[in-house]
Amino acid sequence: MLGGAGARRGISRREAVGLAGALGVGGIAGAGLQLAAGDETPTAAPPPTTVPLGSVGSRIVPFRGARQAGIATPTQRQSHARIAAFDLLPGVDSTELKALLQRWTTAAAELTAGDGGDDMTADSGPASLTITVGFGPSLFGQAGIPAGARPEALAPLPAFAGETLDPGRSDGDLGVLVAADDAVVVYSAIRRLEQLAAGTARPRWQFAGFTRGRGVTTNEGATVRNLMGQLDGTRNPKPTDATFTRTVFVTGDGWMQDGSYLVVRRIRMLLDDWEKLDVAEQEKTLGRKKDSGAPLSGGVETTPANFGRLGADGRPMIAENSHIRLATSAFNRGAAILRRGYSFADPQPGGGVEAGLIFLAWQSDPRTGFIPIQQNLVRGHDRLSTFTRHETSALFAMPGGVSSGGYLGQALFEEIGR
Amino acid sequence: MLGGAGARRGISRREAVGLAGALGVGGIAGAGLQLAAGDETPTAAPPPTTVPLGSVGSRIVPFRGARQAGIATPTQRQSHARIAAFDLLPGVDSTELKALLQRWTTAAAELTAGDGGDDMTADSGPASLTITVGFGPSLFGQAGIPAGARPEALAPLPAFAGETLDPGRSDGDLGVLVAADDAVVVYSAIRRLEQLAAGTARPRWQFAGFTRGRGVTTNEGATVRNLMGQLDGTRNPKPTDATFTRTVFVTGDGWMQDGSYLVVRRIRMLLDDWEKLDVAEQEKTLGRKKDSGAPLSGGVETTPANFGRLGADGRPMIAENSHIRLATSAFNRGAAILRRGYSFADPQPGGGVEAGLIFLAWQSDPRTGFIPIQQNLVRGHDRLSTFTRHETSALFAMPGGVSSGGYLGQALFEEIGR
Repeated sequence: MLGGAGARRGISRREAVGLAGALGVGGIAGAGLQLAAGDETPTAAPPPTTVPLGSVGSRIVPFRGARQAGIATPTQRQSHARIAAFDLLPGVDSTELKALLQRWTTAAAELTAGDGGDDMTADSGPASLTITVGFGPSLFGQAGIPAGARPEALAPLPAFAGETLDPGRSDGDLGVLVAADDAVVVYSAIRRLEQLAAGTARPRWQFAGFTRGRGVTTNEGATVRNLMGQLDGTRNPKPTDATFTRTVFVTGDGWMQDGSYLVVRRIRMLLDDWEKLDVAEQEKTLGRKKDSGAPLSGGVETTPANFGRLGADGRPMIAENSHIRLATSAFNRGAAILRRGYSFADPQPGGGVEAGLIFLAWQSDPRTGFIPIQQNLVRGHDRLSTFTRHETSALFAMPGGVSSGGYLGQALFEEIGR
Repeated sequence: MLGGAGARRGISRREAVGLAGALGVGGIAGAGLQLAAGDETPTAAPPPTTVPLGSVGSRIVPFRGARQAGIATPTQRQSHARIAAFDLLPGVDSTELKALLQRWTTAAAELTAGDGGDDMTADSGPASLTITVGFGPSLFGQAGIPAGARPEALAPLPAFAGETLDPGRSDGDLGVLVAADDAVVVYSAIRRLEQLAAGTARPRWQFAGFTRGRGVTTNEGATVRNLMGQLDGTRNPKPTDATFTRTVFVTGDGWMQDGSYLVVRRIRMLLDDWEKLDVAEQEKTLGRKKDSGAPLSGGVETTPANFGRLGADGRPMIAENSHIRLATSAFNRGAAILRRGYSFADPQPGGGVEAGLIFLAWQSDPRTGFIPIQQNLVRGHDRLSTFTRHETSALFAMPGGVSSGGYLGQALFEEIGR
């Protein structure tokens, strides 16, 4: 049924390639563009260079499947996102919680298909809307959900030296990530979920973020810059990597089968200080060239960093305390995360703007993902941390996908016999 | 030179139409879409339905011309905007102010052409970036700008019953509107202008807004919904109207020749209350059907409202206190404004979201534009005002455009002999 909706509103990859072929134009080098509704697997075929107007808005990412959408699909993240946490109201029981998850399931299936009876979404098309839902550590032990059902991997994150977290904008019983290529669609969807939570859960915090316009940019598929101006995500795991699935998704571990753990950090950038550095200093801080993203050891953006390479001064070209050295998988016993963050730039009273990164990292287990990487960054006195502040933190277990007739989190309720 | 940049990075209307022709596809009914660089005048030719990928990002709206861009161009407003006010630092003189306007001119010309040496803009294309600059009433009498140079039309707005304005987020010596179809481009440009103001002016307030994704939506060219879900802007003046130019742009009046006055109001929507109304009540409040935007007197969205038409109950089908009746030009001695507002939805501490409209209204004179319309809405107890709160207010005189070799506000400096 969803495939039918996709065929009706969207444009298939085959059709798009056909159009490009008719025009005699070639592919875009290096683009990892997702064009077709339901295109969950990467393909080697070059993407088309010409598309029908509105085809970005009409794209559908299927809500149902073995895994939730919005984690590894679409391959390139959407342009806009909001992430929100909710806390259960006092006295809510497991029946009410399950009913909320069922309401959210129905709404998410409709909205993501562009069939929600919602004027705002209908006007713009679903625009690759994804809605991804999960559970925070604090949910377990509440509302009839036994503390013992909490996976070991969902233990609250440890404290990290140097962070000053705002508890009111951290944690939460439920986490919801909404993303789409149209900011109105994102707003409309998260508002709907909030309305459906009434009487069961209340909003705890929400962040709104943006990245380069998918379908708008002249540079589709290329790595996107963060608000420091740095290409961010060059070494992200790719769906074509042999290790991709085990890096991102849970195998085994009961109700979390096919799920993923999401770490959320609002990382403010001290841009006034950062922008006082000259470009060479900024590059030493990261370990990469600012314009091209190439590692300072040479090559192009995609060239693996050569951490052993010494400069004329006999010191490593990529400094010991540079961000990419400390964060790289090789120096963290293989720890890897899939980063799909969004920039934020929130106007403040007094005329200033708080800007930075809503860091979103997906992994099969934070104990072999975000935690050791962040610990290594702290231990190594990451040079970038002078210019960033981790202000909030949350961890959510995002369970596996929703089958036909099923609902979000169903495996958890079945496991605990509710 | 700018035309050359446009030809290099953009796609001309001729090329776009040629592509559409090659595919044998027709136009989009009712679309007022601007596709080509430099397309400042509306044309009857139907826009193409197929565009090259990235063509939305590569669009250029020329910065130089008789009028500033961002007022009536592009015809359909861009997807993202930030508006900011700046106050002069104490002791700044007219030479320093002029130098700031010259720095802003250079930066705006480069950034809008996609040639700013700015990685973030270069990555996404200028995406129809426009930068529009003007002066608040408080500028006059400062920095060597005589109080007498302030046009009568730039008198501070009168107080309106029912409003509670936040002075810290109202007014300002200088006003800057930045808009583009990519949120990163908008952020990057306003950040650059802020950096260039250092030492001369400090930020006073900033708002960030969004509307439906231009080039993304499946409904290009159609009226866009606000966050109440209502089609908003149906009766906006159109460039093809005989009265358009005199409604929007100044003729005569010295240095404001070819300029326009911008009213900015952050209007918060009380959506919790609004969404408790059933659709019929919402429609009575506005005077239009919610789904189609048709007036309650019948027809389709574009049908003129028949305010005299009575229903079966003998009362006007469009209620006396409905928003469209009180705001309509016919009941305000012809007063008209060009609205190009943006939605906002700013997350707040405690988990809530402040949402509404960054109302932006352009006119040749606020005394025959926003002021009488707003006074009539207040006098008539506009039913919509139950659900809205005007929280901030600003008025800026946005002067005429910048000629080759000229700078923003040059006519003012020449008139006062500075």
